[in-house]
Amino acid sequence: MTDLNLRDGEAAVAPPAATDAGLVFIGRIQTPWTRREACPRQGSADGPLCAIEVFAPWVEALDGVAQYPTLEIFYWMSQARRDLVRQNPANDGRIRGTFSLRSPIRPNPIATYIVSLEGMEGGRLQVRGLDCLDGTPLLDIKPDRRCFAPSKVD
Amino acid sequence: MTDLNLRDGEAAVAPPAATDAGLVFIGRIQTPWTRREACPRQGSADGPLCAIEVFAPWVEALDGVAQYPTLEIFYWMSQARRDLVRQNPANDGRIRGTFSLRSPIRPNPIATYIVSLEGMEGGRLQVRGLDCLDGTPLLDIKPDRRCFAPSKVD
Repeated sequence: MTDLNLRDGEAAVAPPAATDAGLVFIGRIQTPWTRREACPRQGSADGPLCAIEVFAPWVEALDGVAQYPTLEIFYWMSQARRDLVRQNPANDGRIRGTFSLRSPIRPNPIATYIVSLEGMEGGRLQVRGLDCLDGTPLLDIKPDRRCFAPSKVD
Repeated sequence: MTDLNLRDGEAAVAPPAATDAGLVFIGRIQTPWTRREACPRQGSADGPLCAIEVFAPWVEALDGVAQYPTLEIFYWMSQARRDLVRQNPANDGRIRGTFSLRSPIRPNPIATYIVSLEGMEGGRLQVRGLDCLDGTPLLDIKPDRRCFAPSKVD
């Protein structure tokens, strides 16, 4: 069956069911972008202020976060298809495997982004550096790994 | 009810069911460490060679990966509890919130690591820089974000 949403050279597979582990959405990201086409290709440190709202019962887990100037945010790209193994990115037209791209389209559409923390009050963080849709589900917040003793590649 | 596995000052919550989204395990990581206590606290660029085995139908998605000297590996820390909001890390004894730690214990125990790619054959990658248990489930492989045009914080 021809999939009309595939670009030239793209390949889809019939993936196994995504039931090996389950995720809980721990919050929601608020951004200025309400359509995928409007999202920037990549977040920027001088981009607009975005808000991260952490849901109960996880607000207590934010204790100590304010000491880090930069944080790693994990979120779920809920609108991305998950079955492509080969992609033809619109921006350069070089067909290649999904794992050689940072495209949202992947078997497990988890994104990570480094953001700068601009403010925090209760369960609400103000950050810069995101690129995602308004309403994107939040999966995790971690201190930027560069705040810890580095290894050579990390 | 007292949870005997909690250290002083730690707090657990009754988390919502982890059913908001599902993950598929796309491969398996082979390391020298078969017990959690034996794992290094952090991977190192001069650590032992580890193998990443990618399962069908995802092997085709590796096309183009070999051009990147460093990759970001996402894996699932299946043995970690998910209900702590406040932790008392053994290595420093400062009690703080889960989101101010990179501990495996978190609502969604997803780890990311930057590894150096040392070799690749078919669906099997040889890498250095991991710190996880032998048999750890693989979630994703992405090019290291530093290989792309940088923003200021990213």
